[in-house]
Amino acid sequence: MTDTPALRHDGRAPDQLREVRFTRNWLDHAEGSVLVEFGRTRVLVAASFTEGVPRWLKGQGKGWVTSEYEMLPRSTNTRSDREARKGKVGGRTHEISRLIGRSLRAVIDTTALGENTIVVDCDVLQADGGTRTASITGAYVALADAIEDARGRGLIRKDAQPLTGSVAAVSVGMIDGRPVLDLDYPEDSTAGTDMNVVMTGEGQFVEVQGTAEGEAFDRAELDGLLDIATAGIAELTKLQQAALAGEARERVL
Amino acid sequence: MTDTPALRHDGRAPDQLREVRFTRNWLDHAEGSVLVEFGRTRVLVAASFTEGVPRWLKGQGKGWVTSEYEMLPRSTNTRSDREARKGKVGGRTHEISRLIGRSLRAVIDTTALGENTIVVDCDVLQADGGTRTASITGAYVALADAIEDARGRGLIRKDAQPLTGSVAAVSVGMIDGRPVLDLDYPEDSTAGTDMNVVMTGEGQFVEVQGTAEGEAFDRAELDGLLDIATAGIAELTKLQQAALAGEARERVL
Amino acid sequence: MTDTPALRHDGRAPDQLREVRFTRNWLDHAEGSVLVEFGRTRVLVAASFTEGVPRWLKGQGKGWVTSEYEMLPRSTNTRSDREARKGKVGGRTHEISRLIGRSLRAVIDTTALGENTIVVDCDVLQADGGTRTASITGAYVALADAIEDARGRGLIRKDAQPLTGSVAAVSVGMIDGRPVLDLDYPEDSTAGTDMNVVMTGEGQFVEVQGTAEGEAFDRAELDGLLDIATAGIAELTKLQQAALAGEARERVL
Amino acid sequence: MTDTPALRHDGRAPDQLREVRFTRNWLDHAEGSVLVEFGRTRVLVAASFTEGVPRWLKGQGKGWVTSEYEMLPRSTNTRSDREARKGKVGGRTHEISRLIGRSLRAVIDTTALGENTIVVDCDVLQADGGTRTASITGAYVALADAIEDARGRGLIRKDAQPLTGSVAAVSVGMIDGRPVLDLDYPEDSTAGTDMNVVMTGEGQFVEVQGTAEGEAFDRAELDGLLDIATAGIAELTKLQQAALAGEARERVL
Amino acid sequence: MTDTPALRHDGRAPDQLREVRFTRNWLDHAEGSVLVEFGRTRVLVAASFTEGVPRWLKGQGKGWVTSEYEMLPRSTNTRSDREARKGKVGGRTHEISRLIGRSLRAVIDTTALGENTIVVDCDVLQADGGTRTASITGAYVALADAIEDARGRGLIRKDAQPLTGSVAAVSVGMIDGRPVLDLDYPEDSTAGTDMNVVMTGEGQFVEVQGTAEGEAFDRAELDGLLDIATAGIAELTKLQQAALAGEARERVL
Amino acid sequence: MTDTPALRHDGRAPDQLREVRFTRNWLDHAEGSVLVEFGRTRVLVAASFTEGVPRWLKGQGKGWVTSEYEMLPRSTNTRSDREARKGKVGGRTHEISRLIGRSLRAVIDTTALGENTIVVDCDVLQADGGTRTASITGAYVALADAIEDARGRGLIRKDAQPLTGSVAAVSVGMIDGRPVLDLDYPEDSTAGTDMNVVMTGEGQFVEVQGTAEGEAFDRAELDGLLDIATAGIAELTKLQQAALAGEARERVL
Repeated sequence: MTDTPALRHDGRAPDQLREVRFTRNWLDHAEGSVLVEFGRTRVLVAASFTEGVPRWLKGQGKGWVTSEYEMLPRSTNTRSDREARKGKVGGRTHEISRLIGRSLRAVIDTTALGENTIVVDCDVLQADGGTRTASITGAYVALADAIEDARGRGLIRKDAQPLTGSVAAVSVGMIDGRPVLDLDYPEDSTAGTDMNVVMTGEGQFVEVQGTAEGEAFDRAELDGLLDIATAGIAELTKLQQAALAGEARERVL
Repeated sequence: MTDTPALRHDGRAPDQLREVRFTRNWLDHAEGSVLVEFGRTRVLVAASFTEGVPRWLKGQGKGWVTSEYEMLPRSTNTRSDREARKGKVGGRTHEISRLIGRSLRAVIDTTALGENTIVVDCDVLQADGGTRTASITGAYVALADAIEDARGRGLIRKDAQPLTGSVAAVSVGMIDGRPVLDLDYPEDSTAGTDMNVVMTGEGQFVEVQGTAEGEAFDRAELDGLLDIATAGIAELTKLQQAALAGEARERVL
Repeated sequence: MTDTPALRHDGRAPDQLREVRFTRNWLDHAEGSVLVEFGRTRVLVAASFTEGVPRWLKGQGKGWVTSEYEMLPRSTNTRSDREARKGKVGGRTHEISRLIGRSLRAVIDTTALGENTIVVDCDVLQADGGTRTASITGAYVALADAIEDARGRGLIRKDAQPLTGSVAAVSVGMIDGRPVLDLDYPEDSTAGTDMNVVMTGEGQFVEVQGTAEGEAFDRAELDGLLDIATAGIAELTKLQQAALAGEARERVL
Repeated sequence: MTDTPALRHDGRAPDQLREVRFTRNWLDHAEGSVLVEFGRTRVLVAASFTEGVPRWLKGQGKGWVTSEYEMLPRSTNTRSDREARKGKVGGRTHEISRLIGRSLRAVIDTTALGENTIVVDCDVLQADGGTRTASITGAYVALADAIEDARGRGLIRKDAQPLTGSVAAVSVGMIDGRPVLDLDYPEDSTAGTDMNVVMTGEGQFVEVQGTAEGEAFDRAELDGLLDIATAGIAELTKLQQAALAGEARERVL
Repeated sequence: MTDTPALRHDGRAPDQLREVRFTRNWLDHAEGSVLVEFGRTRVLVAASFTEGVPRWLKGQGKGWVTSEYEMLPRSTNTRSDREARKGKVGGRTHEISRLIGRSLRAVIDTTALGENTIVVDCDVLQADGGTRTASITGAYVALADAIEDARGRGLIRKDAQPLTGSVAAVSVGMIDGRPVLDLDYPEDSTAGTDMNVVMTGEGQFVEVQGTAEGEAFDRAELDGLLDIATAGIAELTKLQQAALAGEARERVL
Repeated sequence: MTDTPALRHDGRAPDQLREVRFTRNWLDHAEGSVLVEFGRTRVLVAASFTEGVPRWLKGQGKGWVTSEYEMLPRSTNTRSDREARKGKVGGRTHEISRLIGRSLRAVIDTTALGENTIVVDCDVLQADGGTRTASITGAYVALADAIEDARGRGLIRKDAQPLTGSVAAVSVGMIDGRPVLDLDYPEDSTAGTDMNVVMTGEGQFVEVQGTAEGEAFDRAELDGLLDIATAGIAELTKLQQAALAGEARERVL
């Protein structure tokens, strides 16, 4: 009891998520969009549906889902240079864009999508740790809205089910030898091991990416991190479902 | 009377601004920030204050204010490619970034600022016409907040007045032979002449940029456009003052 | 009388152009070309006519006119790095290229041009202020020659009139509180307000770009600048006509 | 018994590595180098030791280890374009370079290294699956040689131990519902789940990166993959030790 | 006699090549490949045969042969930055790539090749002088193998002879006033004149590139250099023939 | 006699230069400049003198001379894209820039130059063959003027002789089996062998670059080409001396 406050600087229990909010249809133009917040981390997600597929996929009757992630220059504590000004996309940006794309494709039946493309843009407006996991979790909501929008406009068949499930993501890490859930920036900076876990709503793994920061970790620690992540994803899945069941533009806790 | 509705598709009077909102301190990290809205146009402005100046300005006892403008890929009706992915910043982006920077420097006493730099990022979250004028108008608010923040932290002298006035901007154009104020995207696409006017709060001109779209325009039309712009800027100046007088994070109409 | 010499370092009257020269067909290959000189500012303009249009314009029966502007590295007092070496085109270069293209298109009937493209290259060989206005003024002459050349080769119809008028440009600025015409580099560096005005031969405005350097300017100053620019453009229009009426390769004052 | 041949096209047992070879000092100039082969996958690793550290690390008494990975254009079945010609480094290349660097730093005591930098280049001469795991496994050998070389030349202290352990990596995946070790390219293309595991010689995890290809995977599958990877790493660790104990330039199985 | 050891640091006679080795089929995927060694200079050459030609050559019934040259970052004494990281290909790299391509095309009958393309990649694994001449000499061997491979697969006609001859290259230079053959890096750094000569197996010149380093050279020196180069090329031609006559993967001196 | 007209389309004798003109001080700002013309080939050369040297040369008491070559987009028969727009400098451009730089450094005593840098820009305004040889030949004149200018301003010592001689260049080629001098574009396109020769005013070779176009060439052809080039360079040397002896801005044949 007495040491929990010491464990997390914001008073959360080790297995407690930050306050998570989805504001659907935050944009007027995008087929699906959501402002997703994990505490102070704030990502604007826009899912753009277009007919047709990239050249390399043409004529196969299949669709494509991809993602691009970027941080605004002042999303962070100190301003970073724009990648457009530097003339190239950084390694971390590429890596996260690819991760989000793979995560979404894990719950997409590309044949049911037909020859259509959905690009999911995740722009981090404010960063306080967990920007990639918030992006994936929000991207699923925007993707679901974009698919419903396309269905409503007859761009995909009424009975087609391009989504084979839901997907969400959360970060976990070791702090003072204990696994904790959903790290914010100060925690992320000090955690001994950092792991991002992407899972379906049915509790299967899509991605597991664990990195030792400083000390390598053993199998028992890995197991503890996976346990706490699994529980966190289950909670996020419920929040996604509630958001999609609610009115768009309404905030859902 | 009867033809006013025909003039503007949203029922505004020719000299009427869209609803303008400033949400100050929208970001937690930036020294000054504002979410500025001109109707459905929505720009996130962050003013980042850092000690020191670029190399070419060192040792002169003067500060520097600059700006970068960019549109999110799905701020528009159809998705555009990211400039970072294309590996270069487009001509229009550069042009607007430079315009915003010049406009802000018109009301800055760089000596009073001391050897400090303020970078003002204007990221267009949603575009519906007037993104550059909304950016300038919001940028002034964020800039004022950043300067107050620096003063509070002792980074600029208590009695220094780096701001010599306020600055705001508005677009005007000719529709069906009449000058109209603050064009939204559908109006901007059809207007015969397009002009962006940047003025100080005292009613002096900082920038006048008029472009004939289609037909060239005569001196009388130019005069009409400048009249309506001058009145619009006066109104925007009052809204800026009200916003800066209010609580941060409160929306001000 | 006595203070005019003090006003301008080269002894010109406030409303006096520098010596303007057009040397037509300076190049052997280009369909239209001119070496245009505004005093010591010297721009080589080449208008290249090609059949066909960019992909986005195909099948509409319309042509396209565009422009590219660049400064040679040693056109200026001190050498600048080549943009090709830096791997990107600078903001100012883009901005001026776009301005020249828009100015030329203001006097082009793209339907009369047919599905043909004219690219007008403006390469500044020597810069002494007013490179963009000299470029536009010379570009009109090269454009007219390229169109005549294409007509002669049967690439546009005999009776088609792709040019709906002429276009010229001049810079104006406030020096010691007085409006002056056609600033050279030393004047441009000290002028309080800097304005570039593009007009048709019939005296209509195509572009008005005024920027306060230092102090903002009031409506009376703006009016004074527009007056002097209008007179200057009328003079440039006559010089263009004389050049086009003369023998190519002959210098025209 | 009977189905093992069916499981792997090259007849290996599920938990069997390909033939692994290290040819140390393959290069004459590099402080440490190795040609590492995992079956037909062949990576040339060069560890370059230089005195001094990047600017951001100066004056802290610490060293730096980083890595760059790249594939030769014809290392693969069909030729790929060079990234240098495309003018940018691809996302996958960046991602793997970063992974190798992090893996090596997990066994480096940067204080013991002193203010020195080691860059480890991993150039894939031939690719047949597992290029990143072969790179990491070979990079440790080259890194160890580079450190010994520096010690011999007095560039690091005699008693300093910059290496806190060894590191190796292997890929595992699910084929026909069974976990298999060290996938070659044909296996990698068909495996249901693909996981790269980086561990220290003491059996601790440094990186765990599992990705569902097609179907998501459950906890039992994850456990099976980690078990087989752990055994494979133990074997690779022994091969690294044998290589480092042997004569340089001698092939070690 | 007594001064020959003084002339060359490795004891070679002035007209003596370094040990030259060709290891054919060093790669499993490429249609033709060779690891070519001129002493410690080691270049991996891969000839990739693909059906079809670049757009600008289509429909003419002709093929295309081109080359790309690059140095691994640690092929040299001190590590160089990767060109891919710098985002552009350096002048020297371009120049040598173009030289190799021209040299190979000098012995290619593009009509006999049919509408096929062969790209020859020359990647320098270790550099000790003469990397471009080793590349050309090895590239001929890989090219011949790629053509034989294509013939065997029926991609070029049985009776077509795309190769009209052989090509090889060698460097020569003036050391202490004497012409010497096949300079290694220490010699190349001190030679007064540096010349690269490319010749056919029949003794005709394809390229002659001589550069004065320091002092300009006279006609007699030029003649002496050409003589020694001609003899060296004749020897390289025999070694190429022997290599192509032998078993692939066998080293040939 | 009768076949000479058939040999060269413009009636020149095989060993005859085109009309060569140097217009010195064509630019007002550059320390040295010349508009050099070889027939219709027209290159604007600017030599920029600056105090100081690149970082890698600092503190050695030596100067640096380098060159950059570029073609204007419409210098050629059909317009080429700007390299600045393409974002990279092409291989041919790099190659020629490097050649010009090496050629000039062959007649520079960098110690006598002191720690100063001269950048020689060669911009091709119109191309009709021989742009690189005209550039080198003109560059020497601009370089000599820049050095005199620096001497006059006391930036190099009165008695220092940074120029150790003169340098000029010419192209030669085989047409119908005969060596011809100073090829124009139509000749260059059909010549069997193309050679560029750079020599000092004293008749020593600085660069010899011969390339077989189509057929390889033999030693006798090479000798014939070198003979004719040597005579041509002697003539160019005289023209350079006459130009430098004359008034600047006066045309010299």
